[in-house]
Amino acid sequence: MHGAKSPAAATVGRSDTDERRLAWVYLSRVVEGPCAALSALIGSVGVVEAARAVRECALPEALRGPTELRRGIDRAERDLAHIERLGGRVVTPDDAEWPAWRMLGLGQLDPAQDADAAVPLVLWVRGKRSLVEATERSIAVVGARCSTGYGNHATGEIAGELAARGWTVVSGAAFGIDGMAHRAALAVGGMTIAVLACGPDRPYPVQHDQLLAEIVDTGLVVTEYPPGTSVRKHHFLARNRIIAALADGVVVVEAGIRSGARNTVKWCRRLGRPAMAVPGPVTSAASVGCHRMIREGEAFIVTRAEDILDEAGPLRLSLPGVVPPNPEDNLSGEQALVFAALPGAGSRLPRAVVADTGLSMSAVRATLSALEIVGLVACDSNGWYRTNPSTTSAVVAAQERHR
Amino acid sequence: MHGAKSPAAATVGRSDTDERRLAWVYLSRVVEGPCAALSALIGSVGVVEAARAVRECALPEALRGPTELRRGIDRAERDLAHIERLGGRVVTPDDAEWPAWRMLGLGQLDPAQDADAAVPLVLWVRGKRSLVEATERSIAVVGARCSTGYGNHATGEIAGELAARGWTVVSGAAFGIDGMAHRAALAVGGMTIAVLACGPDRPYPVQHDQLLAEIVDTGLVVTEYPPGTSVRKHHFLARNRIIAALADGVVVVEAGIRSGARNTVKWCRRLGRPAMAVPGPVTSAASVGCHRMIREGEAFIVTRAEDILDEAGPLRLSLPGVVPPNPEDNLSGEQALVFAALPGAGSRLPRAVVADTGLSMSAVRATLSALEIVGLVACDSNGWYRTNPSTTSAVVAAQERHR
Repeated sequence: MHGAKSPAAATVGRSDTDERRLAWVYLSRVVEGPCAALSALIGSVGVVEAARAVRECALPEALRGPTELRRGIDRAERDLAHIERLGGRVVTPDDAEWPAWRMLGLGQLDPAQDADAAVPLVLWVRGKRSLVEATERSIAVVGARCSTGYGNHATGEIAGELAARGWTVVSGAAFGIDGMAHRAALAVGGMTIAVLACGPDRPYPVQHDQLLAEIVDTGLVVTEYPPGTSVRKHHFLARNRIIAALADGVVVVEAGIRSGARNTVKWCRRLGRPAMAVPGPVTSAASVGCHRMIREGEAFIVTRAEDILDEAGPLRLSLPGVVPPNPEDNLSGEQALVFAALPGAGSRLPRAVVADTGLSMSAVRATLSALEIVGLVACDSNGWYRTNPSTTSAVVAAQERHR
Repeated sequence: MHGAKSPAAATVGRSDTDERRLAWVYLSRVVEGPCAALSALIGSVGVVEAARAVRECALPEALRGPTELRRGIDRAERDLAHIERLGGRVVTPDDAEWPAWRMLGLGQLDPAQDADAAVPLVLWVRGKRSLVEATERSIAVVGARCSTGYGNHATGEIAGELAARGWTVVSGAAFGIDGMAHRAALAVGGMTIAVLACGPDRPYPVQHDQLLAEIVDTGLVVTEYPPGTSVRKHHFLARNRIIAALADGVVVVEAGIRSGARNTVKWCRRLGRPAMAVPGPVTSAASVGCHRMIREGEAFIVTRAEDILDEAGPLRLSLPGVVPPNPEDNLSGEQALVFAALPGAGSRLPRAVVADTGLSMSAVRATLSALEIVGLVACDSNGWYRTNPSTTSAVVAAQERHR
């Protein structure tokens, strides 16, 4: 009776849900960050079987390297206890709180182009609000660490206005523009999300300890890195994709010529969402990156919250005085594109939507499924159709504006 | 012997050239500004016959109104004497100094869309330099009268740099950005042209009396209005088309929401030349018009002289170290488009060029003729061909960049 617990005994009384959660958490620590090959394995054999394969090193060649270093570290239960002690939680793709809609695009990117192109395995979350609700309407505001008084002021105005209008401000908690964006949202009692490049227990930068504590109080601190993970240079680049994924669009306020903000913009564009940049004095080095992105067509120019919502916000009916509560008003990116490609009356085959939108077949299928989940479209033997064709003109008009 | 001179006697000894010049000058005073209907009449019957028809009111209905008020004022000889006393001259389409190439586009616009869409009948010019040479490489820099310190500084940097690189700075001599642009060009010993909305003898604004005198000294003051003409509101709008026509592109530095600079940009775009705007702080009302034009796709964003020359300057070979003295490097707008549509080897019919460029047949024919004048193209029984196909790739590459 006092013998060591056998591995089998350890799982006695553990529900499937628990087992899956432990598998996600175990894998999160093994790969520390995005791993497209592991995501693919999970997609094909399921998370529990994938965890077993990693543990036993019964792996394809591509996965041996990424898992080699930490596959022996199985401290999932302790990690879960740790995040609980911090008042946080881990959110996995199995959870209702998982922002599935937001993550769709990341899973559709080609990992051959960028090794980081993968959905995070889990998100470690601190804060009381629901992640899925907090990211329903959200804009990322990012920029230079070495910001100027002008940049700080512009960020305060823009992020404050977005937050006051009920939009979540997503940023990276860095010095300069990021910190200012969070503070502006907090100042108006708005919602803000800090996405970290380290474990959820690590305040980074350490001088933002207090700011991060305030964000945990009324907003959310989110990271894909398990507790205890330190920041590393490549974490920032991978982190930026989560900032982009959690928002309807990315706004850059001040960026030097080699700013990391350009990387966030790259993710944003790859996800099919609007990237935006705020101009500044041409005499200011801190605005050079913004001007360059605008000039090279990488970002739209925006000067105020209204411009940002024009680009990234809900598509609006142009009928005067009509403010419809239709869910399709919240469409953007591929969702809006695909929805607009469906006829106002009748059905359409995915093949025709592919031809119209220029998206890949897999993107169209995934997007149609996502639209189906929220009840905007359905399919019959003739193809896909809109469940409510009444607002056709508004969505199409908004799409036209972006062509 | 002491009898009054008969009208016939007055023209005794007058050369054809003199007669044509007097006809242009007479008509310039009669219509005071652009008159597409009169330009059409001159195009069909010649300037001497058109002047006779106006004098005798042997006119189509459309021309009676515009000529009614001043057709009785025939003081062409006195006007010529007047401009001569001012040290100036009148430049007509008959003169070698006429910037024919620059004016081509204006004659191709549809006057039904804008009554001012017409080539000026003559230009009243003060200053020593040749107008046609001074406008060989030129950029218009215009903007708000109520400029800020930032706008003045940016204008000084940009216009000074353009002038120092040998580009003529064209502007409207107004308070604020215009005046700053002229001063910056003068300060580096560069060339500048002020285009007025009044007679060449009228300093406007009067506080720029000294500035205009300096421009006459080393640059050019140009207007289509005969001596003595006061500024009127609609003159400014018509004047703006000459600013646009005389330059390879228009740069706006600071413009309020209802700035006249937007009108100059409109002309620039209608002439197929690049319109550009300099961003500024989003907190500055003086930059709102610039940001709006960039946002609405009316103007490219530019932050320094180099950006401007990338858009409007000579098309450059991408071969490192090669700076070709080829005249086609100076092509822009329709000329570049048409030249690029001709094959590197062999000939092409205008019809095919129309199909490729999307320009009208009349625009293509006029542009081919202009290119022929400067020796870049020629035609044979198979169509039009490039006289020097060696730089094909550079021009095509530059065109691609703008698509």
